[in-house]
Amino acid sequence: MAEHEIMTDAIIFLDQLVIEDVKTLCDMTVETGFFSNDEVLIVEELAWSFITEGAESDYSFLLAAPGCAQHDRPFAFACFGPIPCTNGSWELYWIVVDQHSQGCGFGRRLNNEMERRIRAMGGRKIFLETSSRTQYLSTRGFYEACGYQMESRLVDYYEQGEDCLVYSKILKRP
Amino acid sequence: MAEHEIMTDAIIFLDQLVIEDVKTLCDMTVETGFFSNDEVLIVEELAWSFITEGAESDYSFLLAAPGCAQHDRPFAFACFGPIPCTNGSWELYWIVVDQHSQGCGFGRRLNNEMERRIRAMGGRKIFLETSSRTQYLSTRGFYEACGYQMESRLVDYYEQGEDCLVYSKILKRP
Repeated sequence: MAEHEIMTDAIIFLDQLVIEDVKTLCDMTVETGFFSNDEVLIVEELAWSFITEGAESDYSFLLAAPGCAQHDRPFAFACFGPIPCTNGSWELYWIVVDQHSQGCGFGRRLNNEMERRIRAMGGRKIFLETSSRTQYLSTRGFYEACGYQMESRLVDYYEQGEDCLVYSKILKRP
Repeated sequence: MAEHEIMTDAIIFLDQLVIEDVKTLCDMTVETGFFSNDEVLIVEELAWSFITEGAESDYSFLLAAPGCAQHDRPFAFACFGPIPCTNGSWELYWIVVDQHSQGCGFGRRLNNEMERRIRAMGGRKIFLETSSRTQYLSTRGFYEACGYQMESRLVDYYEQGEDCLVYSKILKRP
């Protein structure tokens, strides 16, 4: 616990990806056990598009890493972006915390930092989609603890019997 | 009316795009007056990606054209595709009928043909998003006439005061 507490103080946020990060993010996503192979391939694809297209990309990445030079391998990331053809709506596509770093509040701090940046870019509201499966109860608990509320349900979306739950959060002006 | 009736009989569906179609589709989309510049740019981008990537593209186009060799300029199109990371859910992104050909049932026939093809590819359910603005009342009426039902509402999605309405239709097995 002591080590985590030190890391909590020393966390840094990075808004650029280097090539080595792609494998780190994919491995971290696989290891959580919460994502399908297709979803991991999409993380990889979006990470590459962010590296090659930079600010032109529709997707932004924000990484959380320990704040010491000897060990800057990210242990959490969020992928998000403005929703095309909307004015001020953003989507949180992924937020993943390395399984060894979960339960220490890093996901919540990463989400807070992402919200701060989205607000600074004129964002009004964040949407995200998650599954109705029991497996994702802890995921939904995390979003609710971060202040997201379930706004709608799309029945049989992922497959027959598995709905899509759309959560959202209104960003308050500071 | 007589001409439309003949055209109704002779309508053909095309599932490939040629380069000349891109301008036709964009012009048709602009002329309806229902789409923003950003949305027209997306139609253009998706059309090019469909031409260059073909079956690799995540987006399919289906065109309706008069069924005579002398005049094969399309007068309606649908753009749709399987929703990534779902099993059998498809999204109808755009369905546009040239403003001079509206009110003759072409949109509905095009939608029927699209549904037939989606069902043949294992689709279970089609989703689409539209705006809550009064301007889109006729659009919503069209979707309802095609058997789509409003399934959920995302408040202040497009902008403050303009919601996203998610419509869906379950595809019955033949």
